[in-house]
Amino acid sequence: MSASPTEIDLLVEARWVVPVEPHAVVLEDHAVAVHEGAVVALLPIAEARAAYAPRERVVLDEHALIPGLVNAHTHNPMTLLRGLADDLPLMTWLKDHIWPAEARVMGPDFIRDGVELAVAEMIRGGTTCANENYFFPDVIAATYRAMGFRAVIGLPVIDFPTAWAKTADEYFSRALEVHDSLRGEPLLSTAFVPHAPYTVSDENFERIRVLADQLDIPVHLHTHETAHEVDEAVAKDGIRPFQRLQKLGIVNDRLVAVHMTQLTDAEIAACAKAGVSVVHCPESNLKLASGFCPVEKLRAAGVNVCIATDGCASNNDLDMFGEMRTAALLAKAVAGDAAAFDAAYALRAATLNGARAIGLGERIGSIEPGKRADLAAVRLDALETQPLYHVASQLVYAAGRHQVSDVWIDGRRKLAAGELVDIDTAAIRAKARAWRERIAAEDAA
Amino acid sequence: MSASPTEIDLLVEARWVVPVEPHAVVLEDHAVAVHEGAVVALLPIAEARAAYAPRERVVLDEHALIPGLVNAHTHNPMTLLRGLADDLPLMTWLKDHIWPAEARVMGPDFIRDGVELAVAEMIRGGTTCANENYFFPDVIAATYRAMGFRAVIGLPVIDFPTAWAKTADEYFSRALEVHDSLRGEPLLSTAFVPHAPYTVSDENFERIRVLADQLDIPVHLHTHETAHEVDEAVAKDGIRPFQRLQKLGIVNDRLVAVHMTQLTDAEIAACAKAGVSVVHCPESNLKLASGFCPVEKLRAAGVNVCIATDGCASNNDLDMFGEMRTAALLAKAVAGDAAAFDAAYALRAATLNGARAIGLGERIGSIEPGKRADLAAVRLDALETQPLYHVASQLVYAAGRHQVSDVWIDGRRKLAAGELVDIDTAAIRAKARAWRERIAAEDAA
Repeated sequence: MSASPTEIDLLVEARWVVPVEPHAVVLEDHAVAVHEGAVVALLPIAEARAAYAPRERVVLDEHALIPGLVNAHTHNPMTLLRGLADDLPLMTWLKDHIWPAEARVMGPDFIRDGVELAVAEMIRGGTTCANENYFFPDVIAATYRAMGFRAVIGLPVIDFPTAWAKTADEYFSRALEVHDSLRGEPLLSTAFVPHAPYTVSDENFERIRVLADQLDIPVHLHTHETAHEVDEAVAKDGIRPFQRLQKLGIVNDRLVAVHMTQLTDAEIAACAKAGVSVVHCPESNLKLASGFCPVEKLRAAGVNVCIATDGCASNNDLDMFGEMRTAALLAKAVAGDAAAFDAAYALRAATLNGARAIGLGERIGSIEPGKRADLAAVRLDALETQPLYHVASQLVYAAGRHQVSDVWIDGRRKLAAGELVDIDTAAIRAKARAWRERIAAEDAA
Repeated sequence: MSASPTEIDLLVEARWVVPVEPHAVVLEDHAVAVHEGAVVALLPIAEARAAYAPRERVVLDEHALIPGLVNAHTHNPMTLLRGLADDLPLMTWLKDHIWPAEARVMGPDFIRDGVELAVAEMIRGGTTCANENYFFPDVIAATYRAMGFRAVIGLPVIDFPTAWAKTADEYFSRALEVHDSLRGEPLLSTAFVPHAPYTVSDENFERIRVLADQLDIPVHLHTHETAHEVDEAVAKDGIRPFQRLQKLGIVNDRLVAVHMTQLTDAEIAACAKAGVSVVHCPESNLKLASGFCPVEKLRAAGVNVCIATDGCASNNDLDMFGEMRTAALLAKAVAGDAAAFDAAYALRAATLNGARAIGLGERIGSIEPGKRADLAAVRLDALETQPLYHVASQLVYAAGRHQVSDVWIDGRRKLAAGELVDIDTAAIRAKARAWRERIAAEDAA
């Protein structure tokens, strides 16, 4: 070629690239060209070397490069409560352990330190975006911003007073303040997070519906998590929570519905028709004995199915590789079909579908020119991923998150050959241990 | 103390020791004294330092020391087929991919190279004993012996000719040959492995029953793996496979029954009464959509429940940490009880229960004086296992197998600070890649 090569910031050369879009494609010996935080090209390595003069070149010759994983539902400050109370009935767990612990520690320090620990864990495991759902969104947002991590900041609404807000008006005014403060932030956006149908009034849902339209943001809530929740709602309201949300105008393409273990075929069809995204948290649903989300039925109906870890208190990790694997395995047994929810779909659910659910489908979730460069590289030469017949299978069914070697968010390196960049691991560990001393001393266990 | 310290081979000092027996106990700052391959004492570090003069002292100050994990059902040569064919209906998977691949490659080289890869993976993940079920037990045994790995070598019986044997008489004569050749081996013993009720005749089960009694060895077989298997048997024989096994005298305390997803309450009670061990392979059962083993009911009935990975072609790993976690999570959802199958029980199922099932309950499976020193240390200072409230929870619900740092089998170090001892990782990887070239070239996928 006679044209002089184009100067770019970064060229990542990988043995395999799984762009996610187009679906179920694995490219061999391809490179991703990155400039000013965006993917500018995806092309064979030989062509890339001729076309580009990168300031930095990274060679990943035993690796698969995938879009950074999108954790579509999490409560990251709760990472500090990882394993505080396990193997307990839901209400004992909540009332005797989690809620009292939260009540003792809730505040900006706990929020910040929990999110820092979570961000470090997420990056080490190839996750580059979190759909966050917790109190003190101002502190959460400041922590993500300081660490250069992409997140959708939940604006909580719940019908009782908390340390964050006391009245409905205060929840909404503080939500709008946080939303306004984040305008123009490159890595942060917002969503309303009404806690659940059973803790939010019709009136507050109506305010959320109007404001979500005005602000053009998602509505992210737990619902149909257990049969008990649905039964209680029917006893109280005469209708299922999903029907109530339909009546309230909440069931639309802004809705990010988390858990959804209890669904009729009609509800599945209604989700598909309305463009609802369903977030599947398989390990949380198993651990709390919540039920089985019919993800294969949802997928087949055309619903946008995403994957998430839920909070660390009910998982007990932020491992999206583990969650993809559990989702793909469990879906087969629930559907009674070993061909259900295949590896390529699990990868899509954990990346592009999550991005679409939270309003970032045009920006992240796949490796395509024009998208932001959120990337994760996974070493596949470990004995545990040998021999290697099919890359997507290996990523979903055999690889562990510790095989993630390199991560970029918005084109900036966050993990390099397994080491966190610009994150003080020792300080984070020390803070986690200090919280442990304080929290364990007062736990009922 | 005035007595001079006793000379021993090894003293392992750990921040935490989980001996498994007594149940649900976590000892802090304890040491395990090892001499001539056996555990001679388990005591506080300070006392150990006064009492013993070890030739080698290993300090594990951020680690939990547990008994080496016992993988109670596996087909380790199939590790070379990891991920060859996934996301397929069972019969397509078997008939179009697995069986043709096995037919092309079956023989001593494939067996040896597959077991070598498996042993390396198992040791890296804290597994120290495998209950093996595959053809060419002579080659399997030789490979385990050469690598210093503990295993129960399955002696296969199946009603059709294979590369291993052609007739029933040949299966039995070769089985007895292998059994005789292993007498006196410190790390190896045997079990009969009739493939499954639907592939083994009454006559052959009767021979197995008599011989297993004479040789005093377990009978390890797949059964009640799917509803289809049970339905077919009922259509053919008029009774369920378990009933047929009862009539044949196979349902007794030698029986190691694998899968068992289809069980009536009466069958569960019969297992408990007869002393049957049930091996739960949760990830294989999910991946092949086989069904859900009622492990919590089995546990509550007093049945000895074990955990296993099954072969790598249906998992796709030999990760007993992952399998413990999946077992503990799935049991809760299947039982509808978040308190079911707790972390301490999952650890027990993956160690002592497995050892008991395969006739090694007096030798391994717990850290107790008099037992052989099969040990695994897990680093818990990783961010992913911080903060740390409860050691057993952290091991089962948060730790990954890559946190295993040190492993001993029969008192000999097999993994030291994450590095395999006396195993040529590069050679194993190269052989896996060579098999991949040969197998992939002819696969139908």
